Amino acid sequence: MPALGKHIKPILLSLGEPAGIGPDCVLRAFNAHPELFDDIRIAAPASWLRARADDLCLSIPIEETPSLEKRLPSGSLGCWNPGIETSPVRPGKPSHENAQAVIDCLRHAADACLHGHARALVTGPIEKSVLKNAGFAFPGHTEFFAHLAGVERVVMMLASDVIRVALLTTHMALKDVASHLSVDSTLGCLRIVHTDMQQRFHITQPRLALCALNPHAGEQGHFGQEEIDVLIPAAEQAKSEGIQITGPLPADTLFSAAMRKSFDVAVCCYHDQALIPIKALSFGNAVNVTLGLPFVRTSVDHGTALERAATADVSYSSLEAAIEMAQHLSHATE
Amino acid sequence: MPALGKHIKPILLSLGEPAGIGPDCVLRAFNAHPELFDDIRIAAPASWLRARADDLCLSIPIEETPSLEKRLPSGSLGCWNPGIETSPVRPGKPSHENAQAVIDCLRHAADACLHGHARALVTGPIEKSVLKNAGFAFPGHTEFFAHLAGVERVVMMLASDVIRVALLTTHMALKDVASHLSVDSTLGCLRIVHTDMQQRFHITQPRLALCALNPHAGEQGHFGQEEIDVLIPAAEQAKSEGIQITGPLPADTLFSAAMRKSFDVAVCCYHDQALIPIKALSFGNAVNVTLGLPFVRTSVDHGTALERAATADVSYSSLEAAIEMAQHLSHATE
Repeated sequence: MPALGKHIKPILLSLGEPAGIGPDCVLRAFNAHPELFDDIRIAAPASWLRARADDLCLSIPIEETPSLEKRLPSGSLGCWNPGIETSPVRPGKPSHENAQAVIDCLRHAADACLHGHARALVTGPIEKSVLKNAGFAFPGHTEFFAHLAGVERVVMMLASDVIRVALLTTHMALKDVASHLSVDSTLGCLRIVHTDMQQRFHITQPRLALCALNPHAGEQGHFGQEEIDVLIPAAEQAKSEGIQITGPLPADTLFSAAMRKSFDVAVCCYHDQALIPIKALSFGNAVNVTLGLPFVRTSVDHGTALERAATADVSYSSLEAAIEMAQHLSHATE
Repeated sequence: MPALGKHIKPILLSLGEPAGIGPDCVLRAFNAHPELFDDIRIAAPASWLRARADDLCLSIPIEETPSLEKRLPSGSLGCWNPGIETSPVRPGKPSHENAQAVIDCLRHAADACLHGHARALVTGPIEKSVLKNAGFAFPGHTEFFAHLAGVERVVMMLASDVIRVALLTTHMALKDVASHLSVDSTLGCLRIVHTDMQQRFHITQPRLALCALNPHAGEQGHFGQEEIDVLIPAAEQAKSEGIQITGPLPADTLFSAAMRKSFDVAVCCYHDQALIPIKALSFGNAVNVTLGLPFVRTSVDHGTALERAATADVSYSSLEAAIEMAQHLSHATE
């Protein structure tokens, strides 16, 4: 990866909640692998990182600039702060005074991506309850970015070296999943997955596998009707649009070693159907990728872990994987 | 494994549907590894196996005896037929004329286990629709054996070298799972798993992990109430009875490499929650074990595959794994 020059647009990285482990992960990852950050700008005030570096007794050259185009000294960790005002941060104690600054960091970062000033966005973990009290009306990052981008539908995907899984539904009670599936919503998801697998992952003819909802894919309606009423019609319509898709297929055999070779991405009906196999098969390197946005966005797969902020008990492997995935996906979009 | 003598009770193996691949699996497994069958008696008429051996051009010494106590020539494949009458079998074409014979084989085999004349039962795949037409009023093998044994509740478990999973519910639509969970049924399952892990698997203090139903274990009721209303009370009651159990735990992280070391068996809420991880992690050697019966029963994990009967396209790895598991589990019950 070349050092960041004027001709390469940066990847932005948001710290998330500054009282959580977001700053720890960035500092420890930079300390271990500074070359990973050559094309990264941290979308946050440098004061947050400098204070945490002091807490951790890490000597790291941290620079701040209000411009994404300005070059920074080689070997430094570069922060981009377009004028965000902050208050001091106490590790493990999120403050309402900084909530607006956290939201502003996300908004500026997304705007920079939307306007083509940055090529991708990697997000650290936010503390949703704190932002909610400050008027943040979104369930999470993803919906906020979709709102800023003006898109109605995005898709959560997890990707590792072993497998990729996309989700038809995300965080809801299992008993509510069946009633939330529709031909339209399934088809909307399949189109986004197909398009982003082509445009972001550079797979010319992506092979989608659609997971059944019910055991044994319902055995012709004996254990549930959703395959017949929803998933098969959606898959048929997708095929007629040129999407290469198999299924709905029984979910239990789909993730076996032999079957995994037959698809590029499995489209799953619910959270655990997707996350059980990828977390069972991938050793801590699964990355959350948001499909359907007009820019590349990846995310760490952990929370703020407030109790571990500014301690030695922090792993940055998920952040490294999220950075590497963003670099990979945005490489050809220069 | 020693050759079967008078002092070692045999393990019985039912062919299941004689027109399916059950006979193929037995013949091919014996042909490749005859020593695996030293303590096995096939609970079926020899004529079924002899005809299939002819179809496959396999020269295998097949003996038949009406008595489980009679010794058979060393190196032969021994059939136990206590007087079951049969009709000719056409590969791939189940016949109603043989349905009663299939049921009789299962009944005799289970009775022999219940009366202590055999030490375990391995079952091949049956064709349920054929048996149903002959008056077989059970959804499958398992319920038939429970009926013969006079037990109200059995538990389906799958076990491989990598992991063991037990199921709270089995073949039902996903939307019906939540309403089928109760404190009593969960507790009943936990007690059976605990007892059989001790008695069959010889684990003195088995560590059970209970899977949550909802994503993130429901996040304190935000995504479903079943953890609070059902699973936590059942786990607490089980603990008070001396069962070592953790959970309910989020299912997505439970099967990661790090977490798998923390339990001996995961008790899962529904079919795919259990079968996705074991089939993803185990390379075709998962064995179906029925817990809660008064005898050891294992099963192949495939169906009759009628279209492949008497062809070269048959794998016997599941049968070998089921035999080895039955031998292992019944070893200390001589």
